[in-house]
Amino acid sequence: MKGRSDLQQRLERIVFGTDTRAGRLFDVVLLWTILLSVALVLLESVHEVRVRYGPWLMAAEWTVTVLFTIEYAVRVWVSRDRRRYVLSFYGLVDLLAALPTYVSLLAPGTQALSIIRAIRLTRVFRILRLTTYTREASHLLLALYASRHRIIVFTLAVLALVTVFGTVMYLVEGPSHGFTSIPRSIYWAIVTLTTVGYGDIAPRTALGQALASAIMILGYAIIAIPTGIVSAEIARQERQRRVLTCTTCGAGDVQDDARYCPQCGAPMKGA
Amino acid sequence: MKGRSDLQQRLERIVFGTDTRAGRLFDVVLLWTILLSVALVLLESVHEVRVRYGPWLMAAEWTVTVLFTIEYAVRVWVSRDRRRYVLSFYGLVDLLAALPTYVSLLAPGTQALSIIRAIRLTRVFRILRLTTYTREASHLLLALYASRHRIIVFTLAVLALVTVFGTVMYLVEGPSHGFTSIPRSIYWAIVTLTTVGYGDIAPRTALGQALASAIMILGYAIIAIPTGIVSAEIARQERQRRVLTCTTCGAGDVQDDARYCPQCGAPMKGA
Amino acid sequence: MKGRSDLQQRLERIVFGTDTRAGRLFDVVLLWTILLSVALVLLESVHEVRVRYGPWLMAAEWTVTVLFTIEYAVRVWVSRDRRRYVLSFYGLVDLLAALPTYVSLLAPGTQALSIIRAIRLTRVFRILRLTTYTREASHLLLALYASRHRIIVFTLAVLALVTVFGTVMYLVEGPSHGFTSIPRSIYWAIVTLTTVGYGDIAPRTALGQALASAIMILGYAIIAIPTGIVSAEIARQERQRRVLTCTTCGAGDVQDDARYCPQCGAPMKGA
Amino acid sequence: MKGRSDLQQRLERIVFGTDTRAGRLFDVVLLWTILLSVALVLLESVHEVRVRYGPWLMAAEWTVTVLFTIEYAVRVWVSRDRRRYVLSFYGLVDLLAALPTYVSLLAPGTQALSIIRAIRLTRVFRILRLTTYTREASHLLLALYASRHRIIVFTLAVLALVTVFGTVMYLVEGPSHGFTSIPRSIYWAIVTLTTVGYGDIAPRTALGQALASAIMILGYAIIAIPTGIVSAEIARQERQRRVLTCTTCGAGDVQDDARYCPQCGAPMKGA
Repeated sequence: MKGRSDLQQRLERIVFGTDTRAGRLFDVVLLWTILLSVALVLLESVHEVRVRYGPWLMAAEWTVTVLFTIEYAVRVWVSRDRRRYVLSFYGLVDLLAALPTYVSLLAPGTQALSIIRAIRLTRVFRILRLTTYTREASHLLLALYASRHRIIVFTLAVLALVTVFGTVMYLVEGPSHGFTSIPRSIYWAIVTLTTVGYGDIAPRTALGQALASAIMILGYAIIAIPTGIVSAEIARQERQRRVLTCTTCGAGDVQDDARYCPQCGAPMKGA
Repeated sequence: MKGRSDLQQRLERIVFGTDTRAGRLFDVVLLWTILLSVALVLLESVHEVRVRYGPWLMAAEWTVTVLFTIEYAVRVWVSRDRRRYVLSFYGLVDLLAALPTYVSLLAPGTQALSIIRAIRLTRVFRILRLTTYTREASHLLLALYASRHRIIVFTLAVLALVTVFGTVMYLVEGPSHGFTSIPRSIYWAIVTLTTVGYGDIAPRTALGQALASAIMILGYAIIAIPTGIVSAEIARQERQRRVLTCTTCGAGDVQDDARYCPQCGAPMKGA
Repeated sequence: MKGRSDLQQRLERIVFGTDTRAGRLFDVVLLWTILLSVALVLLESVHEVRVRYGPWLMAAEWTVTVLFTIEYAVRVWVSRDRRRYVLSFYGLVDLLAALPTYVSLLAPGTQALSIIRAIRLTRVFRILRLTTYTREASHLLLALYASRHRIIVFTLAVLALVTVFGTVMYLVEGPSHGFTSIPRSIYWAIVTLTTVGYGDIAPRTALGQALASAIMILGYAIIAIPTGIVSAEIARQERQRRVLTCTTCGAGDVQDDARYCPQCGAPMKGA
Repeated sequence: MKGRSDLQQRLERIVFGTDTRAGRLFDVVLLWTILLSVALVLLESVHEVRVRYGPWLMAAEWTVTVLFTIEYAVRVWVSRDRRRYVLSFYGLVDLLAALPTYVSLLAPGTQALSIIRAIRLTRVFRILRLTTYTREASHLLLALYASRHRIIVFTLAVLALVTVFGTVMYLVEGPSHGFTSIPRSIYWAIVTLTTVGYGDIAPRTALGQALASAIMILGYAIIAIPTGIVSAEIARQERQRRVLTCTTCGAGDVQDDARYCPQCGAPMKGA
């Protein structure tokens, strides 16, 4: 790759970085533009809005699309490793943010269009990318990541439970009461166990209602498990953060009630 | 401002203060009057009650209004800094508590009236102001305040999730199954993720029900996150409140009922 | 009161006590009889069962009633302080457990009967009295009792929230969409905030659905508060139970990492 | 029992063990075959699928059945104590996994068939048996097991509550509003207390809706109890797992990454 100009380097700090005033401003403006573009997709799907404000929406749509196109071009131009950016997850998302509106010119048709437009909503992930920088979000993600094995085990147990309950309810209630197939009965069991309870399918026999009651009380009780997992994990992280640093060896995780550093054995200052 | 009379000072302690017997009695009477006035607004909105007890409600309404007017006048009269009280949040709420009934004389009409009356319900905040003085309420608010960054991050993540899920469900189920627009699909996703589940909109295709099942299990699992955040915060506050620091050895986690430091054996001060 | 016979004293230990084999057996038999009598009330309310097994239910009903009458007479006879037992809560419940069936002879009529029968269900409290003796139940009740101020504050805040939200939704949706009065709108707000979501009333305007979404997310988030309160309380109890007893002064709540007794300053054994 | 051949011993390690590469591979293949066989039962219950892909499903069904038959025969052949395996829980489940398809040849008829097929879903437990080996699952089960007394007490209290509330609602709303019997009213109370809220039965009188509101707020609040129980238990386990005991001073809460005891400064063994 040839030498990069001064403009490229300055733009790179603004477009990709968040450590300068201009870089932060760029991110905030981009955030609002993405939110506006998402709002446009939402509004275009409402029939009354489309009928009344169609041309205005179209104009706003093209404005946003042109802005995203310029942004994508700038990002490619200023990247140190263009190939890597273009093929990265956000490189693809940035491209897909602008593409659908152009495609709609070549292949018109409402249904097809709206499907392509939906992909643009992955821009929401760009917003998440911004918040991920905040400390708290990463703490929560860490807590979830540390609990991932337990959450998977819990989810598998829930799936096994709803499969068994769904099958039993299919046999008890039968197709005439809305439990037309085992998958549909499992769907009902999930709706019930998670305490959502649409009511589009509901047991009508006494035995079915007794079984449903058992599932509900079970669902009401086992919600304690994911909550307990995450609570314990967050509490553990909190505890680890309330630590002192040893001034002798620099160990950074000394409990605040220790009289001697657990890493080097030197007495702790202030203890 | 001119010198304040003895009566003004005595009334100020009663009306604004809570440290005298008369002051506490005033607050309790006021609390019940506010609850009564709120009950009147509720009852007036019920058609059968309005038809049968209309005159009685009207009489009670005016009694409460006159009491609130007197109270407001007294509060203004006894305030040290009248301008500050009148323009403060509760100064405005106190005024708005009495005003709507007078306005209803000038501008009659049921619909308009009830809208104005609703503002009076902000008097509920005055009740909350009283309970805020209690220790426990402020502890809970502190726990929520300390967790505000995490709760905002969590709410943003939930909003991003329901936007994505709502759009996908709009494409999967389509307008013919009740998912008439993306905003409406997002409304459905919120109803489902929060496990409310009205059932006014429910997926009917197999793919839609499978997706809905995924959202439900997700919603059932991620409720653990706000719970974990608040649990950890309350536990942290509990811990901080129950410890003293030993002045001899500096141990910072001595239980508040200890008479001797558990680390160095020196007697605790004040025990 | 005249001298109590040997039989009276033996029966008292059986009927009121739980420290003898016979006493425990009596409690278990009584528990099952109460459950049976409750089941009878449940079954009698089912129309098909009443039509088919009416005479059998009547026979079982009278058997249980006679047993409860004998039990009540024995309890009165063996009591040390008869007046105190008869006027105590369980004295009244024991009487009301037998009475309704006799009253039904004098005043027949299905509707009236069933109302009186419902009182018998308070016998369930007698069952609870038995479980209260178990250690775990009293721990849970202690945790709830210790958290009572916070739970009341939380409930008041929830009531204030649903009152405000209910009124706003009444104004936004109006009687034509099912929100016929403010109390009914508050009922809807409770159904929504607690994530029950019957769907008998549901918002239909875009603004109403947006507001409803806010309530749902709020309800989904603030469920964290009671959970956090109780979790912290149970964790605190757990911690207090993991304590040592000082062999010098007998203090029973020494933390298990203490080197000196916090009450008398003597070194802890084994530390 | 006669001497076991080398092949029997090698097969036993593969079929029953999980400590060899072949044994783990066998378990994974078996897991997928079970999932496939469960999926076949689910699909066969869907009317459209049965009509269109009937012969294919039948072929897959018989393939799976033959595989399970061979597996069962091998398990019996290689067992050290055949009688014990055949009569064990998983011995019976392994047999029942293969049997229904053969039985369907002798006794055809869709309804009867599907009932027998449902038993096969207990194969899901075999999947759970595999995950039980994982550390996290056993931790969760331990936490649940340690909390079993509390969870039972809580469930009994919930059952007592819904019985009382169900009976009161039966008297308040009556059969004309859908509360046709006390058991059905209790079913409604469970649906409401657990915040499922189908909406198939909903109170219509003002008093009924007020009572329902009380049940909902209660249900919303007491979900804190199981959550608090499990949270405290998981947190307790976490704490116990992360500590060592100092062999010099006997301090029992040394973090497992400490090299020196924080209480006496002596080096920790094994660090």
